Amino acid sequence: MTKVEGSICAVPATETEVVQLAHGGGGRLMNTLIETIIRPAFGNPLLDTHHDGAVFDVDGGKLAFTTDSYVVKPLFFPGGDIGSLAVNGTVNDLAMCGAEALYLSAAFIIEEGFPLEDLRRVVRSMKEAATRAGVSFVTGDTKVVDRGNGDGLFVNTAGVGLARTKTLVSPRAIVPGDAILLSGDIGRHGIAIMAAREGLAFETKIESDCAPLWSPVRRLVEAGIEVHCLRDLTRGGLASAVIEIAEAAGCAMMLDETAIAVQADVRAACELLGLDPLYVANEGRFVAFVPAADGEEALKLLSGDPACPDAALIGHVSGGAGGGVGIRGAYGTSRRLSMFSGEQLPRIC
Amino acid sequence: MTKVEGSICAVPATETEVVQLAHGGGGRLMNTLIETIIRPAFGNPLLDTHHDGAVFDVDGGKLAFTTDSYVVKPLFFPGGDIGSLAVNGTVNDLAMCGAEALYLSAAFIIEEGFPLEDLRRVVRSMKEAATRAGVSFVTGDTKVVDRGNGDGLFVNTAGVGLARTKTLVSPRAIVPGDAILLSGDIGRHGIAIMAAREGLAFETKIESDCAPLWSPVRRLVEAGIEVHCLRDLTRGGLASAVIEIAEAAGCAMMLDETAIAVQADVRAACELLGLDPLYVANEGRFVAFVPAADGEEALKLLSGDPACPDAALIGHVSGGAGGGVGIRGAYGTSRRLSMFSGEQLPRIC
Repeated sequence: MTKVEGSICAVPATETEVVQLAHGGGGRLMNTLIETIIRPAFGNPLLDTHHDGAVFDVDGGKLAFTTDSYVVKPLFFPGGDIGSLAVNGTVNDLAMCGAEALYLSAAFIIEEGFPLEDLRRVVRSMKEAATRAGVSFVTGDTKVVDRGNGDGLFVNTAGVGLARTKTLVSPRAIVPGDAILLSGDIGRHGIAIMAAREGLAFETKIESDCAPLWSPVRRLVEAGIEVHCLRDLTRGGLASAVIEIAEAAGCAMMLDETAIAVQADVRAACELLGLDPLYVANEGRFVAFVPAADGEEALKLLSGDPACPDAALIGHVSGGAGGGVGIRGAYGTSRRLSMFSGEQLPRIC
Repeated sequence: MTKVEGSICAVPATETEVVQLAHGGGGRLMNTLIETIIRPAFGNPLLDTHHDGAVFDVDGGKLAFTTDSYVVKPLFFPGGDIGSLAVNGTVNDLAMCGAEALYLSAAFIIEEGFPLEDLRRVVRSMKEAATRAGVSFVTGDTKVVDRGNGDGLFVNTAGVGLARTKTLVSPRAIVPGDAILLSGDIGRHGIAIMAAREGLAFETKIESDCAPLWSPVRRLVEAGIEVHCLRDLTRGGLASAVIEIAEAAGCAMMLDETAIAVQADVRAACELLGLDPLYVANEGRFVAFVPAADGEEALKLLSGDPACPDAALIGHVSGGAGGGVGIRGAYGTSRRLSMFSGEQLPRIC
């Protein structure tokens, strides 16, 4: 039996190996679950690209395909809800493949007793988000589970899109020297969820950054910039995304912490909660890896898009094997970023 | 607020409208939920084909796209498990669009505390079923929910396939005179689930009919038969599928009950449980609507496929408006089939 790294996690190990909440947190433990159980069973060249979606040729066209289930709690939060999240999340996973979303599916797992009015509200929100992102729902499914065996509503969306880049967007396309761009300030989605969650002792007016990201990606693609890699900064935040990409690319990377925007109230909330904003989830932010020579132009293009209010050049691929990620802070000192092992914020998407 | 037909259902109406278990049963109540809440919000020509999946043109190719979430209880049952179900269900939804499945996604919602060994078993089963059906998993997602807010494991699969028929397979392609073929005996999946479910007072050796259905559909397509409509007989069984199709086609249909195979032990179990096998779920059976002149040839083709042990010509489209479905029994008497209003067997898929 493959051993899962349970010992480094806050949840105590039980006699038989079981899934822990931390397995869903976007950190090292989730990575281990996927890499030791799921990927070895399903493994194939497309899945092994370690990317947000798969890109493949069909009848001459280059298609992208992705899926995500959404279990966010609460269902409604400042700046969004499970519906807008489910649309933008999947649209963004396609955008991160350099693909324009065409069609979505919507599958609902509803707990007995869930108010129909809430379902209507979620469905309306999905429709609005789909219209904003320029996609339509073409197929779906509805399941109902008995009371006590669900949590109100879970939503799955899958998406099919058309890849618009000439070359495959993938961690493997990254080369030493690449500029790393960040599309905006970080940490808002995770903190908005925490603030909305029952029992939390502080209040903020922080709204989720939840938004569709094809528009800024299209700017890069249409300008002819050879985008090497893209990744939206969901579970695990900016740090986890860059660490994962560095590992998959086999390249070391160096980030400049002073270039990374964090709103003052987000920073204050993070300090209060003992969270590092680098690891807090976002739903409308991404990093882009582009050739060094195109860094400035790419930054200009992103900055011109309403979805990228604080776009910045935050670092570069320093080359060399090993895949480590360093970050240089305000006082010029550097530290190495490591993937957190377990759970930072459960059920934020 | 749109009124949902709650009064005809066993679950008592509450002060605020809520989702009832029966809303997931594949009957009239589920139909109402989808038609009054989901379809009006998402409505578009592709979704409005009222079919198991969507078919659309992409760069000259004709693609099919579908999704289903699986909440079957128990996870493991005679003849299958949630993994094989999740693969075959989506492969079959594509086959019912006349499409050969190419790629699948797999999304897991796992409850905290779920045994990793069970997850391994499900994943292995998915891999085996995918290999058997000739598809691969190219993208996926894993979420974990806290203990008490899930039920072990829910799986969503979406699928992308290539439509192989010259004309669109759809209820709207049905014309008066069409022959209706059934691919095999009915009721085994639903009864196998019931038998496996904790607390049920009888035991049988009935195994689920869970199986991939592209192979028999391909036989029809490759023989050049103009398949008008296809539908797999999942929630709600044969009766609900034909009633739904008749309504969408706007045609009356007549079935011959004596031509519909039901295994003796399935019939006995149905009698014990007060169930009508016509309404019991299957996961490896389908109906095909083909031109009257091709009925016999289509039957021969289906009978030659291992997935269709008891294929039969079970009726025809009698034409006329209204979309009613009649069935003629062993003594020559006919009755009209109606969609059951609520829940027959909850969580069978």
